[in-house]
Amino acid sequence: MAVSVLPQIKDAPAMNPVERLMAATADDMARVNELILDRAKSHVDMVPELARYLIDSGGKRLRPMLTVAAAQLFGKGNGSAINFAAAVEFMHNATLLHDDVVDESDMRRGKPAARMVWGNKASILVGDFLLGQAFMMMVETRDVDALGVLSTASAVMAEGEVFQLAKTGDLSTTAEDYAEVIRAKTAVLFEAACVVGAMSGGADEAGCKALSLYGLELGNAFQLVDDALDYGGQSGTLGKNVGDDLREGKMTLPVILALESATESEKAIIAAALGNVEATDLEVHQVVAIFNRYDTLKRTLEKAQAHAAAAIEALSSLPDSEMKTILADVVDHSVNRAA
Amino acid sequence: MAVSVLPQIKDAPAMNPVERLMAATADDMARVNELILDRAKSHVDMVPELARYLIDSGGKRLRPMLTVAAAQLFGKGNGSAINFAAAVEFMHNATLLHDDVVDESDMRRGKPAARMVWGNKASILVGDFLLGQAFMMMVETRDVDALGVLSTASAVMAEGEVFQLAKTGDLSTTAEDYAEVIRAKTAVLFEAACVVGAMSGGADEAGCKALSLYGLELGNAFQLVDDALDYGGQSGTLGKNVGDDLREGKMTLPVILALESATESEKAIIAAALGNVEATDLEVHQVVAIFNRYDTLKRTLEKAQAHAAAAIEALSSLPDSEMKTILADVVDHSVNRAA
Repeated sequence: MAVSVLPQIKDAPAMNPVERLMAATADDMARVNELILDRAKSHVDMVPELARYLIDSGGKRLRPMLTVAAAQLFGKGNGSAINFAAAVEFMHNATLLHDDVVDESDMRRGKPAARMVWGNKASILVGDFLLGQAFMMMVETRDVDALGVLSTASAVMAEGEVFQLAKTGDLSTTAEDYAEVIRAKTAVLFEAACVVGAMSGGADEAGCKALSLYGLELGNAFQLVDDALDYGGQSGTLGKNVGDDLREGKMTLPVILALESATESEKAIIAAALGNVEATDLEVHQVVAIFNRYDTLKRTLEKAQAHAAAAIEALSSLPDSEMKTILADVVDHSVNRAA
Repeated sequence: MAVSVLPQIKDAPAMNPVERLMAATADDMARVNELILDRAKSHVDMVPELARYLIDSGGKRLRPMLTVAAAQLFGKGNGSAINFAAAVEFMHNATLLHDDVVDESDMRRGKPAARMVWGNKASILVGDFLLGQAFMMMVETRDVDALGVLSTASAVMAEGEVFQLAKTGDLSTTAEDYAEVIRAKTAVLFEAACVVGAMSGGADEAGCKALSLYGLELGNAFQLVDDALDYGGQSGTLGKNVGDDLREGKMTLPVILALESATESEKAIIAAALGNVEATDLEVHQVVAIFNRYDTLKRTLEKAQAHAAAAIEALSSLPDSEMKTILADVVDHSVNRAA
């Protein structure tokens, strides 16, 4: 636990918004991280080995930070936020373990995916273990309403993943289908992370609603940016791992928008690369050229900006505070990753 | 929902104990089955298709029956037992979906495993969905203590599966390791099914303890019998699918006891077949011959009988009732499957 090297809040002007969020939540996150390490323990050696390989692999822990930040925003933290934050991170990591098996991903956060080290079987089962531990941590708070939020998120996320799987390589996928996929697989956990934080911070109904919408819209923006970044962002720059989604047949918005406008021969080029794990960089480049012809990466990022604006607007009814400013700035920072 | 063809309680003398349990729980189980069908619904077609393929495939629903039976035993059912029973069945089916992927099983309950029809990916994700729905049903009861029991069971089950995976083909696996595996992967869910039923039926602490022990010991006995049956039961009769556990490298008690006593050449025969998916029926037969030489199937079933006796003994402190007699008789019936 390298708390001492975290940025300090007094350095705020020099820090980007995520660093300011880290500084503002450092004390609570130290407790969250301790809980995470404690609950990843098991007498079965493979469980903590695999779990910590993933958990310690340098994710920003944005979701649990949002939980404790939301609790702090309302100021009446009752300790439950720590459990919810750790539970949210376990739910997220369980999803990553299962997603990497489903997507047959070789890499995660710049190193070999857990399934490449311990195998698919262990990844499935340790994912199940993390999910079980997440529910145990939630139950300890005895907050049934928050449990309802998180258990619903868990089911909706899985449903969203199945929907995405069913739509894999399906050229008839609509922008509405895509909106439903990203809401379910990504935005709902951001929403849950924020709202259970607000609940444990003592927010009233309006406060919970504001944080719920904030999380949902931030999550939508976040996934749209990720999906544009998979093709190199707005410029469609080619680089390492660019086009993974294309080769996996994922029907993300840049593809869907392109298919809406493309000529028959352009459609054929997209269809040939979509879901083709053997597609060459040249073929991916040809698809990105079609995207650029119809501005689909730019339009995807514009959609992300619209969701980002909605996330910030959701906070407008709340009293001004330093944490409110940080949460708003985090949204801008997240969407500007791909600029 | 073929409630009308279920055996009626008045035919009790002609029925075996599981049929008597079915008759005694028929009304509650009709509600459980309705809830199961309702909660397997989704706007994503693949979810209910896959879920119902498994759920409707003729399992006896022993676990949810135990939940409603335990609630009836204490007589003060408050409705939560229906939710818990459906949740327990969803947890069990989620485990089956993931286990079939982990074990690369082709068949389940006499028909192709779901993964052979919809693929591994859908099986993993629909398993996750069922687990999420299970937690949602539990949360609706607002019974935090029962939620604690079931969420703990969920984590322990996954941990047990990882332990079993880690021990696959490990000739140094001990009888104590095996006892831990079957407790975690099987007995804990039987225990949880019984105790949350007792809790929702208004049992006092002693009653909950009795049902907890009953479920745990029944689960242990059940798994020991299953593991003997995988080799054809006490006689070691060869038939369809006999030796699946051997070919998968599963270190079950018949193998562990044989390795304890075997000569070097016998050990070599066992080691050659263990975890060898290509092992012929002849090779499996040679291993079973070694089992018979050291009575390891018989000794496995004797151990099952000891757990069965402990399960029945656990009920002894409770007042006599028709349901208590049924629950005791179900134990005998379960262990005598392999006689």
